[in-house]
Amino acid sequence: MGWIDLDSRACSIARTLEIVGDRWTLLILRDVFNGVRRFADLQRHLGIARNVLTQRLTALVDAGILVRIPYREPGTRSRHEYEPTDRGHELLSVLLTIIAWGDRHLADASGPPVHVRHTACGADVRLVPVCEAGHAIKSASEVLIEPGPGARPARRSSSVSSQMD
Amino acid sequence: MGWIDLDSRACSIARTLEIVGDRWTLLILRDVFNGVRRFADLQRHLGIARNVLTQRLTALVDAGILVRIPYREPGTRSRHEYEPTDRGHELLSVLLTIIAWGDRHLADASGPPVHVRHTACGADVRLVPVCEAGHAIKSASEVLIEPGPGARPARRSSSVSSQMD
Repeated sequence: MGWIDLDSRACSIARTLEIVGDRWTLLILRDVFNGVRRFADLQRHLGIARNVLTQRLTALVDAGILVRIPYREPGTRSRHEYEPTDRGHELLSVLLTIIAWGDRHLADASGPPVHVRHTACGADVRLVPVCEAGHAIKSASEVLIEPGPGARPARRSSSVSSQMD
Repeated sequence: MGWIDLDSRACSIARTLEIVGDRWTLLILRDVFNGVRRFADLQRHLGIARNVLTQRLTALVDAGILVRIPYREPGTRSRHEYEPTDRGHELLSVLLTIIAWGDRHLADASGPPVHVRHTACGADVRLVPVCEAGHAIKSASEVLIEPGPGARPARRSSSVSSQMD
């Protein structure tokens, strides 16, 4: 059974993208990871419409990726800021791979707009693909994405394949 | 100067998401990496509208991530299939981090829907964050995203910060 015979939606990529597969959502996460956590600050920094920001933040809270924390400045009403949960923090790895690709292929002459550093020593951080047997992976051609135990056949795979033959 | 004072668009995340920051685009890349490369096959497997698929594939070709390769089956007109370029192949790392997050947090009781394997030895592949000095990174709190040489101040940062004070 090939990839095309499997249900396109029963996939960890499809499920994750249901939550974060939208440009604004990943930019919101980028800002929250960088300490921009209040609604008004996010709105201004991103240049995003209020209703879109509200909808995306609510979805991230509902998905357990951000939590809303109330705060109050003297003389103003109570407001909220947004902090990543543990599972939210784990999405940093997605942003790191996006940064690495953008730095390599889309930086202008002035160089990469961001550095990702190890706080303890200041050295640049990167994600290295390795296999559980300890081999370093040198290229994408050494990697195979295969159906796992949670894969499901595509609903109409039989009629579809007969159309194809 | 904090993150909020920097131009939100002069960022490798924002630039990369201009190209791939859309659920369909990443699902198309997933299928192409898995060998689903013909228009009709992509359309059927993804359940995507023709015009949306055409638009996304054209954008991926224009961005140098996919190339169109003509093919012809006997008795039919010439058609195209899509293959990742070298820079396209490098986006596999983004998909690997998305798979890892989804497998960990969104798999149902039957287990992860996909396995990512090293073709040479069959062992599972994962991305390990390390710094250039050789330290393993244990948690997101050990990582700092900082402005690099290509960062730009936000356009209206002065008036914005005075409004905030």
